[in-house]
Amino acid sequence: MNALEQRILAEGLNLGRGILKVDSFVNHQVDPMLMQECAVEFARRFKSYEPTKVLTAEISGIAPALMTALELGVPVVYARKHKPITMPDTVFLTTAPSHTKGHNVDLMVSPEYLGAKERVIIIDDFLASGQTILGLMRLAQAAGAKVLGVGALIEKTFEGGRATLEAAGLKVEALARIASMSDDRIVFAE
Amino acid sequence: MNALEQRILAEGLNLGRGILKVDSFVNHQVDPMLMQECAVEFARRFKSYEPTKVLTAEISGIAPALMTALELGVPVVYARKHKPITMPDTVFLTTAPSHTKGHNVDLMVSPEYLGAKERVIIIDDFLASGQTILGLMRLAQAAGAKVLGVGALIEKTFEGGRATLEAAGLKVEALARIASMSDDRIVFAE
Repeated sequence: MNALEQRILAEGLNLGRGILKVDSFVNHQVDPMLMQECAVEFARRFKSYEPTKVLTAEISGIAPALMTALELGVPVVYARKHKPITMPDTVFLTTAPSHTKGHNVDLMVSPEYLGAKERVIIIDDFLASGQTILGLMRLAQAAGAKVLGVGALIEKTFEGGRATLEAAGLKVEALARIASMSDDRIVFAE
Repeated sequence: MNALEQRILAEGLNLGRGILKVDSFVNHQVDPMLMQECAVEFARRFKSYEPTKVLTAEISGIAPALMTALELGVPVVYARKHKPITMPDTVFLTTAPSHTKGHNVDLMVSPEYLGAKERVIIIDDFLASGQTILGLMRLAQAAGAKVLGVGALIEKTFEGGRATLEAAGLKVEALARIASMSDDRIVFAE
Protein backbone atom coordinates (compact mmCIF):
# COMPACT_ATOMS: atom_id res chain seq x y z
CA MET A 1 0.00 0.00 0.00
CA ASN A 2 1.43 3.38 -0.98
CA ALA A 3 1.47 6.57 1.14
CA LEU A 4 -1.64 8.00 -0.54
CA GLU A 5 -3.66 4.83 0.05
CA GLN A 6 -2.53 4.74 3.67
CA ARG A 7 -3.59 8.33 4.12
CA ILE A 8 -6.99 7.67 2.54
CA LEU A 9 -7.60 4.81 4.96
CA ALA A 10 -6.46 6.92 7.91
CA GLU A 11 -8.22 10.20 7.10
CA GLY A 12 -10.59 9.74 4.15
CA LEU A 13 -14.28 10.00 5.00
CA ASN A 14 -17.04 8.35 3.00
CA LEU A 15 -19.84 10.93 3.01
CA GLY A 16 -22.21 8.69 1.05
CA ARG A 17 -23.48 9.03 -2.52
CA GLY A 18 -19.99 8.25 -3.78
CA ILE A 19 -18.40 11.31 -2.13
CA LEU A 20 -15.01 10.75 -0.50
CA LYS A 21 -13.84 13.57 1.72
CA VAL A 22 -10.07 14.02 1.65
CA ASP A 23 -10.09 17.63 2.84
CA SER A 24 -7.32 17.07 5.39
CA PHE A 25 -4.61 16.31 2.81
CA VAL A 26 -5.86 17.03 -0.75
CA ASN A 27 -8.82 19.40 -1.06
CA HIS A 28 -8.90 22.12 1.59
CA GLN A 29 -5.82 21.41 3.63
CA VAL A 30 -3.03 20.03 1.42
CA ASP A 31 -0.07 17.97 2.56
CA PRO A 32 2.69 19.23 0.25
CA MET A 33 5.07 16.39 1.13
CA LEU A 34 2.46 13.79 0.14
CA MET A 35 1.72 15.76 -3.05
CA GLN A 36 5.42 15.75 -3.89
CA GLU A 37 5.61 12.00 -3.36
CA CYS A 38 2.63 11.52 -5.70
CA ALA A 39 4.17 13.91 -8.23
CA VAL A 40 7.43 11.96 -8.29
CA GLU A 41 5.43 8.86 -9.12
CA PHE A 42 3.42 10.60 -11.88
CA ALA A 43 6.64 12.00 -13.34
CA ARG A 44 8.18 8.51 -13.33
CA ARG A 45 5.19 7.11 -15.21
CA PHE A 46 4.88 9.94 -17.75
CA LYS A 47 8.45 11.13 -18.31
CA SER A 48 8.99 8.94 -21.36
CA TYR A 49 6.05 10.65 -23.09
CA GLU A 50 8.15 13.84 -23.12
CA PRO A 51 5.29 16.15 -22.13
CA THR A 52 5.71 19.89 -22.66
CA LYS A 53 2.82 20.92 -20.43
CA VAL A 54 0.62 19.72 -17.58
CA LEU A 55 -3.06 20.63 -17.81
CA THR A 56 -5.55 20.57 -14.94
CA ALA A 57 -8.78 22.22 -13.76
CA GLU A 58 -9.07 24.68 -10.91
CA ILE A 59 -9.34 24.36 -7.93
CA SER A 60 -8.40 21.02 -6.49
CA GLY A 61 -6.36 19.86 -9.46
CA ILE A 62 -3.83 22.63 -8.96
CA ALA A 63 -1.81 21.08 -6.13
CA PRO A 64 -1.07 17.68 -7.70
CA ALA A 65 -0.65 19.20 -11.18
CA LEU A 66 1.76 21.90 -10.02
CA MET A 67 3.92 19.40 -8.18
CA THR A 68 3.94 17.03 -11.15
CA ALA A 69 4.88 19.89 -13.47
CA LEU A 70 7.75 20.74 -11.15
CA GLU A 71 9.02 17.16 -11.28
CA LEU A 72 8.68 17.09 -15.07
CA GLY A 73 10.25 20.55 -15.46
CA VAL A 74 7.38 21.96 -17.55
CA PRO A 75 4.68 24.65 -17.01
CA VAL A 76 1.21 23.82 -15.75
CA VAL A 77 -1.99 25.41 -17.05
CA TYR A 78 -5.15 25.28 -14.99
CA ALA A 79 -8.45 25.66 -16.79
CA ARG A 80 -10.56 28.42 -15.26
CA LYS A 81 -14.22 27.94 -14.33
CA HIS A 82 -14.99 31.66 -14.36
CA LYS A 83 -13.46 34.11 -16.79
CA PRO A 84 -11.07 36.49 -15.03
CA ILE A 85 -10.60 40.02 -16.39
CA THR A 86 -7.08 39.11 -17.46
CA MET A 87 -8.34 36.53 -19.97
CA PRO A 88 -8.61 37.57 -23.62
CA ASP A 89 -12.03 37.96 -25.25
CA THR A 90 -11.70 34.74 -27.21
CA VAL A 91 -10.83 31.54 -25.35
CA PHE A 92 -11.28 27.81 -25.59
CA LEU A 93 -14.38 26.90 -23.57
CA THR A 94 -16.06 23.60 -22.91
CA THR A 95 -18.75 22.52 -20.48
CA ALA A 96 -18.59 19.43 -18.29
CA PRO A 97 -21.05 18.01 -15.76
CA SER A 98 -19.74 17.96 -12.19
CA HIS A 99 -20.99 15.12 -10.03
CA THR A 100 -19.95 16.71 -6.75
CA LYS A 101 -21.34 20.11 -7.71
CA GLY A 102 -24.57 18.75 -9.19
CA HIS A 103 -24.49 21.02 -12.24
CA ASN A 104 -22.42 21.80 -15.35
CA VAL A 105 -19.22 23.78 -15.03
CA ASP A 106 -17.42 25.78 -17.69
CA LEU A 107 -13.75 25.07 -18.30
CA MET A 108 -11.75 27.76 -20.09
CA VAL A 109 -8.19 27.95 -21.34
CA SER A 110 -6.58 30.91 -23.03
CA PRO A 111 -5.10 30.17 -26.47
CA GLU A 112 -2.04 32.08 -25.23
CA TYR A 113 -0.94 29.11 -23.12
CA LEU A 114 -2.03 26.04 -25.03
CA GLY A 115 -0.82 25.63 -28.59
CA ALA A 116 -0.69 23.18 -31.44
CA LYS A 117 2.79 21.87 -30.66
CA GLU A 118 2.09 20.99 -27.03
CA ARG A 119 2.38 17.47 -25.66
CA VAL A 120 -0.03 17.45 -22.74
CA ILE A 121 -0.44 15.36 -19.60
CA ILE A 122 -3.67 15.94 -17.67
CA ILE A 123 -3.40 15.67 -13.87
CA ASP A 124 -6.36 15.90 -11.50
CA ASP A 125 -7.21 14.97 -7.93
CA PHE A 126 -10.10 12.62 -8.72
CA LEU A 127 -11.05 10.36 -11.60
CA ALA A 128 -14.74 9.48 -11.20
CA SER A 129 -16.93 9.56 -14.31
CA GLY A 130 -14.06 11.14 -16.24
CA GLN A 131 -16.21 14.04 -17.49
CA THR A 132 -13.94 16.83 -16.22
CA ILE A 133 -10.90 15.13 -17.71
CA LEU A 134 -12.72 14.61 -21.02
CA GLY A 135 -13.52 18.32 -20.96
CA LEU A 136 -9.84 19.14 -20.46
CA MET A 137 -9.02 16.82 -23.35
CA ARG A 138 -11.50 18.68 -25.58
CA LEU A 139 -9.84 21.99 -24.65
CA ALA A 140 -6.42 20.62 -25.53
CA GLN A 141 -7.72 19.21 -28.80
CA ALA A 142 -9.38 22.54 -29.64
CA ALA A 143 -5.92 24.08 -29.26
CA GLY A 144 -4.49 21.43 -31.55
CA ALA A 145 -2.40 19.98 -28.72
CA LYS A 146 -1.77 16.27 -28.28
CA VAL A 147 -3.00 14.70 -25.03
CA LEU A 148 -0.75 11.81 -24.07
CA GLY A 149 -2.07 10.63 -20.76
CA VAL A 150 -4.05 11.25 -17.62
CA GLY A 151 -2.96 10.96 -14.01
CA ALA A 152 -5.39 11.05 -11.10
CA LEU A 153 -4.49 10.87 -7.45
CA ILE A 154 -7.66 8.92 -6.60
CA GLU A 155 -9.77 6.83 -8.95
CA LYS A 156 -13.25 5.65 -8.06
CA THR A 157 -13.28 2.61 -10.28
CA PHE A 158 -17.01 2.05 -9.68
CA GLU A 159 -17.82 5.24 -11.60
CA GLY A 160 -16.40 3.93 -14.83
CA GLY A 161 -14.34 6.93 -15.93
CA ARG A 162 -11.29 4.88 -16.88
CA ALA A 163 -13.12 3.02 -19.66
CA THR A 164 -14.41 6.33 -21.04
CA LEU A 165 -10.91 7.85 -21.12
CA GLU A 166 -9.24 4.72 -22.52
CA ALA A 167 -11.89 4.62 -25.24
CA ALA A 168 -10.78 8.17 -26.09
CA GLY A 169 -7.25 6.83 -26.55
CA LEU A 170 -5.75 8.07 -23.28
CA LYS A 171 -3.26 6.27 -21.06
CA VAL A 172 -4.71 6.41 -17.52
CA GLU A 173 -2.67 6.27 -14.30
CA ALA A 174 -4.16 6.48 -10.81
CA LEU A 175 -2.23 6.26 -7.55
CA ALA A 176 -5.10 5.06 -5.35
CA ARG A 177 -7.87 3.02 -6.96
CA ILE A 178 -11.00 2.70 -4.86
CA ALA A 179 -13.18 -0.24 -5.83
CA SER A 180 -15.93 0.36 -3.30
CA MET A 181 -16.77 2.49 -0.30
CA SER A 182 -19.93 0.92 1.00
CA ASP A 183 -20.61 0.41 4.72
CA ASP A 184 -17.96 2.96 5.75
CA ARG A 185 -15.24 0.65 4.44
CA ILE A 186 -12.91 1.87 1.72
CA VAL A 187 -11.72 -1.02 -0.43
CA PHE A 188 -8.92 -0.59 -2.95
CA ALA A 189 -8.88 -2.35 -6.31
CA GLU A 190 -6.36 -5.16 -6.75
CA MET B 1 16.84 42.14 -9.83
CA ASN B 2 15.48 38.73 -8.82
CA ALA B 3 13.97 36.09 -11.13
CA LEU B 4 10.38 37.11 -10.36
CA GLU B 5 11.07 40.78 -11.13
CA GLN B 6 12.82 39.82 -14.36
CA ARG B 7 9.84 37.71 -15.36
CA ILE B 8 7.39 40.51 -14.58
CA LEU B 9 9.35 42.88 -16.82
CA ALA B 10 9.55 40.28 -19.60
CA GLU B 11 5.98 38.94 -19.51
CA GLY B 12 3.84 41.07 -17.19
CA LEU B 13 1.14 43.15 -18.90
CA ASN B 14 -0.29 46.34 -17.48
CA LEU B 15 -3.99 46.15 -18.37
CA GLY B 16 -4.76 49.54 -16.86
CA ARG B 17 -6.76 50.42 -13.73
CA GLY B 18 -3.99 48.88 -11.61
CA ILE B 19 -4.39 45.40 -13.09
CA LEU B 20 -1.15 43.52 -13.81
CA LYS B 21 -1.58 40.41 -15.95
CA VAL B 22 0.90 37.68 -15.01
CA ASP B 23 -1.13 34.82 -16.48
CA SER B 24 1.86 33.27 -18.24
CA PHE B 25 3.71 32.36 -15.03
CA VAL B 26 1.49 32.90 -11.95
CA ASN B 27 -2.26 32.99 -12.56
CA HIS B 28 -3.41 30.74 -15.39
CA GLN B 29 -0.22 29.15 -16.55
CA VAL B 30 2.19 28.62 -13.65
CA ASP B 31 5.95 28.21 -13.86
CA PRO B 32 6.62 25.69 -11.09
CA MET B 33 10.38 26.28 -11.12
CA LEU B 34 9.89 30.01 -10.55
CA MET B 35 7.33 29.25 -7.82
CA GLN B 36 9.85 26.98 -6.12
CA GLU B 37 12.50 29.68 -6.26
CA CYS B 38 10.06 32.15 -4.67
CA ALA B 39 9.06 29.57 -2.07
CA VAL B 40 12.68 28.98 -1.07
CA GLU B 41 12.99 32.71 -0.46
CA PHE B 42 9.75 32.89 1.57
CA ALA B 43 10.88 29.90 3.63
CA ARG B 44 14.24 31.58 4.28
CA ARG B 45 12.49 34.73 5.52
CA PHE B 46 9.85 32.99 7.66
CA LYS B 47 11.58 29.83 8.94
CA SER B 48 12.66 31.44 12.23
CA TYR B 49 8.99 32.15 13.05
CA GLU B 50 8.50 28.36 13.31
CA PRO B 51 5.16 28.35 11.46
CA THR B 52 2.95 25.26 11.75
CA LYS B 53 0.71 26.12 8.81
CA VAL B 54 0.54 28.18 5.63
CA LEU B 55 -2.80 29.85 4.88
CA THR B 56 -3.89 31.23 1.53
CA ALA B 57 -7.03 31.91 -0.52
CA GLU B 58 -8.14 29.96 -3.55
CA ILE B 59 -7.42 30.13 -6.47
CA SER B 60 -4.26 31.95 -7.36
CA GLY B 61 -2.73 31.81 -3.89
CA ILE B 62 -2.53 28.03 -4.01
CA ALA B 63 0.62 27.68 -6.15
CA PRO B 64 2.95 29.97 -4.15
CA ALA B 65 1.46 28.84 -0.82
CA LEU B 66 1.79 25.13 -1.60
CA MET B 67 5.41 25.51 -2.65
CA THR B 68 6.22 27.57 0.43
CA ALA B 69 4.54 24.99 2.66
CA LEU B 70 6.66 22.31 1.01
CA GLU B 71 9.84 24.26 1.76
CA LEU B 72 8.73 24.85 5.35
CA GLY B 73 7.58 21.24 5.80
CA VAL B 74 4.08 22.16 7.01
CA PRO B 75 0.53 21.77 5.62
CA VAL B 76 -1.19 24.51 3.64
CA VAL B 77 -4.87 25.44 4.00
CA TYR B 78 -6.61 27.37 1.26
CA ALA B 79 -9.71 29.34 2.19
CA ARG B 80 -12.65 28.43 -0.04
CA LYS B 81 -14.81 31.05 -1.75
CA HIS B 82 -17.74 28.69 -2.25
CA LYS B 83 -18.75 26.04 0.27
CA PRO B 84 -18.11 22.54 -1.08
CA ILE B 85 -20.31 19.67 0.05
CA THR B 86 -17.41 18.21 1.99
CA MET B 87 -17.28 21.20 4.37
CA PRO B 88 -19.02 20.90 7.73
CA ASP B 89 -22.16 22.94 8.46
CA THR B 90 -20.33 25.36 10.71
CA VAL B 91 -17.22 27.08 9.40
CA PHE B 92 -15.24 30.26 9.85
CA LEU B 93 -16.45 32.75 7.24
CA THR B 94 -15.43 36.29 6.48
CA THR B 95 -16.14 38.63 3.58
CA ALA B 96 -13.54 40.68 1.77
CA PRO B 97 -13.83 43.13 -1.13
CA SER B 98 -12.00 42.02 -4.27
CA HIS B 99 -10.58 44.80 -6.41
CA THR B 100 -10.05 42.62 -9.48
CA LYS B 101 -13.49 40.99 -9.15
CA GLY B 102 -15.31 44.23 -8.39
CA HIS B 103 -17.42 42.70 -5.61
CA ASN B 104 -17.15 41.08 -2.20
CA VAL B 105 -16.00 37.49 -1.90
CA ASP B 106 -16.57 35.04 0.93
CA LEU B 107 -13.57 33.30 2.45
CA MET B 108 -14.25 30.12 4.42
CA VAL B 109 -12.04 27.81 6.45
CA SER B 110 -13.15 24.67 8.22
CA PRO B 111 -12.41 24.60 11.97
CA GLU B 112 -11.09 21.09 11.33
CA TYR B 113 -7.89 22.47 9.81
CA LEU B 114 -7.17 25.69 11.67
CA GLY B 115 -6.88 25.54 15.43
CA ALA B 116 -5.91 27.58 18.45
CA LYS B 117 -2.34 26.30 18.62
CA GLU B 118 -1.42 27.09 15.01
CA ARG B 119 1.35 29.50 14.06
CA VAL B 120 0.28 30.78 10.66
CA ILE B 121 2.07 32.37 7.71
CA ILE B 122 -0.21 33.83 5.03
CA ILE B 123 1.06 33.52 1.44
CA ASP B 124 -0.70 35.01 -1.58
CA ASP B 125 0.12 35.97 -5.15
CA PHE B 126 -0.70 39.69 -4.87
CA LEU B 127 -0.64 42.27 -2.11
CA ALA B 128 -2.68 45.24 -3.29
CA SER B 129 -5.07 46.85 -0.82
CA GLY B 130 -4.45 43.98 1.59
CA GLN B 131 -8.16 43.25 2.03
CA THR B 132 -7.96 39.55 1.10
CA ILE B 133 -5.02 39.04 3.43
CA LEU B 134 -6.80 40.90 6.24
CA GLY B 135 -9.74 38.55 5.65
CA LEU B 136 -7.44 35.54 5.98
CA MET B 137 -6.06 37.06 9.18
CA ARG B 138 -9.57 37.39 10.58
CA LEU B 139 -10.25 33.72 9.78
CA ALA B 140 -7.07 32.67 11.57
CA GLN B 141 -7.91 34.86 14.54
CA ALA B 142 -11.44 33.44 14.68
CA ALA B 143 -9.79 30.03 14.99
CA GLY B 144 -7.61 31.34 17.79
CA ALA B 145 -4.49 30.87 15.68
CA LYS B 146 -1.55 33.27 15.72
CA VAL B 147 -0.69 34.98 12.42
CA LEU B 148 3.03 35.67 12.27
CA GLY B 149 3.59 37.13 8.85
CA VAL B 150 2.50 37.65 5.29
CA GLY B 151 4.34 36.85 2.09
CA ALA B 152 3.19 38.09 -1.31
CA LEU B 153 4.83 37.34 -4.62
CA ILE B 154 3.96 40.77 -6.01
CA GLU B 155 3.17 43.91 -4.05
CA LYS B 156 1.58 46.97 -5.65
CA THR B 157 2.97 49.51 -3.23
CA PHE B 158 0.72 52.24 -4.66
CA GLU B 159 -2.36 50.49 -3.27
CA GLY B 160 -1.22 50.89 0.32
CA GLY B 161 -1.88 47.36 1.59
CA ARG B 162 1.43 47.09 3.42
CA ALA B 163 0.59 49.92 5.83
CA THR B 164 -2.79 48.32 6.58
CA LEU B 165 -1.20 44.95 7.35
CA GLU B 166 1.67 46.38 9.37
CA ALA B 167 -0.85 48.39 11.39
CA ALA B 168 -2.49 45.04 12.15
CA GLY B 169 0.85 43.85 13.57
CA LEU B 170 1.91 41.67 10.64
CA LYS B 171 5.42 41.26 9.24
CA VAL B 172 5.11 41.76 5.46
CA GLU B 173 7.47 40.29 2.85
CA ALA B 174 7.07 40.78 -0.90
CA LEU B 175 9.39 39.44 -3.58
CA ALA B 176 8.57 41.99 -6.28
CA ARG B 177 7.47 45.46 -5.18
CA ILE B 178 5.87 47.51 -7.95
CA ALA B 179 5.91 51.25 -7.27
CA SER B 180 4.11 52.31 -10.42
CA MET B 181 2.85 50.95 -13.71
CA SER B 182 1.82 54.04 -15.58
CA ASP B 183 2.53 54.54 -19.29
CA ASP B 184 3.10 50.80 -19.88
CA ARG B 185 6.25 50.95 -17.78
CA ILE B 186 6.55 48.78 -14.70
CA VAL B 187 8.77 50.44 -12.09
CA PHE B 188 9.93 48.54 -9.03
CA ALA B 189 10.29 50.17 -5.62
CA GLU B 190 13.82 50.76 -4.33
